[in-house]
Amino acid sequence: MEEIKGGVTAAKGFFASSCEANIKYKDRTDMAMVYSKVPCVSAGTFTTNVVKAACVKWDQKVVSSGEALQAVVVNSGIANAATGQQGWDACEKTAKAVEKALGVPYTSVAVASTGVIGAQLPVEKLEKGVETMAKTLDESLEAGTAASKAIMTTDTVNKEIAVCFEISGVKVTLGGMSKGSGMIHPNMCTMLAFLTTDLSIEKTLLQEAVSEVVSDTFNMITVDGDTSTNDTLLVMASGEAKNKMITEKNKDYDTFKEALLFVCESLAKRMAADGEGASKLFEAKVVNAKTKEDAKILSRAIVGSNLSKAAIFGCDANFGRFLCAMGYSGSIFDENDVELYFQSVNGTLQVFDKGTPIEFDEEKALSIMKADTVTVFVDMHEGDASATAWGCDLTHEYVTINADYRS
Amino acid sequence: MEEIKGGVTAAKGFFASSCEANIKYKDRTDMAMVYSKVPCVSAGTFTTNVVKAACVKWDQKVVSSGEALQAVVVNSGIANAATGQQGWDACEKTAKAVEKALGVPYTSVAVASTGVIGAQLPVEKLEKGVETMAKTLDESLEAGTAASKAIMTTDTVNKEIAVCFEISGVKVTLGGMSKGSGMIHPNMCTMLAFLTTDLSIEKTLLQEAVSEVVSDTFNMITVDGDTSTNDTLLVMASGEAKNKMITEKNKDYDTFKEALLFVCESLAKRMAADGEGASKLFEAKVVNAKTKEDAKILSRAIVGSNLSKAAIFGCDANFGRFLCAMGYSGSIFDENDVELYFQSVNGTLQVFDKGTPIEFDEEKALSIMKADTVTVFVDMHEGDASATAWGCDLTHEYVTINADYRS
Repeated sequence: MEEIKGGVTAAKGFFASSCEANIKYKDRTDMAMVYSKVPCVSAGTFTTNVVKAACVKWDQKVVSSGEALQAVVVNSGIANAATGQQGWDACEKTAKAVEKALGVPYTSVAVASTGVIGAQLPVEKLEKGVETMAKTLDESLEAGTAASKAIMTTDTVNKEIAVCFEISGVKVTLGGMSKGSGMIHPNMCTMLAFLTTDLSIEKTLLQEAVSEVVSDTFNMITVDGDTSTNDTLLVMASGEAKNKMITEKNKDYDTFKEALLFVCESLAKRMAADGEGASKLFEAKVVNAKTKEDAKILSRAIVGSNLSKAAIFGCDANFGRFLCAMGYSGSIFDENDVELYFQSVNGTLQVFDKGTPIEFDEEKALSIMKADTVTVFVDMHEGDASATAWGCDLTHEYVTINADYRS
Repeated sequence: MEEIKGGVTAAKGFFASSCEANIKYKDRTDMAMVYSKVPCVSAGTFTTNVVKAACVKWDQKVVSSGEALQAVVVNSGIANAATGQQGWDACEKTAKAVEKALGVPYTSVAVASTGVIGAQLPVEKLEKGVETMAKTLDESLEAGTAASKAIMTTDTVNKEIAVCFEISGVKVTLGGMSKGSGMIHPNMCTMLAFLTTDLSIEKTLLQEAVSEVVSDTFNMITVDGDTSTNDTLLVMASGEAKNKMITEKNKDYDTFKEALLFVCESLAKRMAADGEGASKLFEAKVVNAKTKEDAKILSRAIVGSNLSKAAIFGCDANFGRFLCAMGYSGSIFDENDVELYFQSVNGTLQVFDKGTPIEFDEEKALSIMKADTVTVFVDMHEGDASATAWGCDLTHEYVTINADYRS
């Protein structure tokens, strides 16, 4: 597997475009489209929030119908959540605009939205946007990059990645883009992520690989503990690489899954590092836990705690806050088994040893915590399961962004 | 029932004192003692955090032993949590210092700590503090107030309250103090609260009343979603009012429970309003939910969401964030049943009506949200259960306080 340039247009036969639809933002692109010249096998994971955005319900229908997926239309600015029948109608009208412009059935068009909840989409602007984008679809890497920029909200950087790998001697490409900065505590996947691949694979196997990988990547990041109404990850597999179709869990399947894991973990970590107002990536590695579920719960609790996050921001090796978060996480353990370390490119420092605090060098701790990525490493000494979760620090900037988001 | 002046020394026969033990803070009191001249019946509720402070384990033993409780020693600055055997020894030594100074058995002395986790208590300073405080015990209201100040950490105001009520013609008094500002998301009770009453009541009934009331008051507040390692609520009932002992759930029991509810709710709301960095009290009332548990989960999710809290700080009527929080709370409901309103002393405004957003007057919304207490009122239209939760806004000051707490 090799990382290559590009994003959603890296794989064969995928096109992208974007435009300024003026939905909420001015003077920037706020709509994107991804299109495959052939119908694709699709898979998806969606928010578990009871209040699901209209577009999430729409996409669940598209993906679960078993029909092909051929185009995705995304807008930023308004989330189309808590919008009733009018919100659903907006999805349908957008998909029908794609049918009109590109001649693909509207039932094979997915839609996704991100932004303010509880506001209606300006449908005419979306329809006009679709018309414009249909005329400017482009398979260049630049078109993919432009699309990844159009779907940003409070993100400070666009996120895209692509890899290529061999399936039985045939070169296959997998690329993707994602966005997400606030309201991030995925319980399915985080905000919006779109992956495209020219791989040929059976739908059920694609869904299985995606679900497993998402649970170890996107579902392991948190910015603020708020699970969005709009979380959506969609994968389109076109088969244009012309590999022998993957129909069972063989070596080829494993190769693909490894590439998928790399892509999803990369995008997930970039989202966490670009969490609203974040100044650094905050990683928690829990090893030797009783079960995988315990390791996940514990690592997520650590990166999810406001107090932990504020300590990371302040470069304060206040390890008691991590133990406290582990303690209320819901996992049952004995603190007398636990070892806790701080790690970064600047070194490793143990601060807690099986129930007892260790006196440590504050200067060394400060140096470790000043790095761009800080890891809290916890050895539970209770089993052999491990998990990693990613988050970010809690900063003044987070408060500023969210105290004045809608207005 | 009537609210009167005072706190832990309001009820007959209770004494308090405080001192500067220089445990972590300088130039302020940081130890407090509450003492009853007679042995008391006790009840308590404690943190559910798996990582329990040594003092929590100590107090659980004292309360559950069924023996009398006669004194409580509290320190601020260091939490005595994650401190191993040395932490437990510190509790025992402190209690033994009380036995030496006041002649009460050390097994009837409770201890409580609040502050940094993972640091050891300076036991000699505590012992010296106990010696000093034993000599200055005082039953004046001022002594109670001074004690409520000594237990503060990042609190900006001390919290105490007292009420008197009649039990079969006899005047009974109930008073209390509490502290708590950060790491507040109680799942038992919030940080430290100490109640004293001269009521005569059976231990099991006292515990039952306390547990029920705590679940509707202290357990319904949240500042930052972090359930502390130290949460402790202790009640001492001396019987000095000489009422006929309450031995069953009769009218007298109800009268006491009503007073207890008033005292606990008052203290809990003051803690939420004084949350770290808070500029206002943020209340969520959920009515007509399917079950009481649903109403509790929903109301707590609303006040617990960082995004909701930041919106409240910014006076932004971004109601979608409240719906989003309800959606991921774990309660199952249909958004098409839900009505949502903003309320304060400045008026009431409906913003969401059974699945659909309502266009509203932004100036009216701003005026409502500028009040010191802002309520999100949600009618679920699914049953007849209701609950109220209290929290505070998320401000720059919260980040400042917690990025630089330990150092």
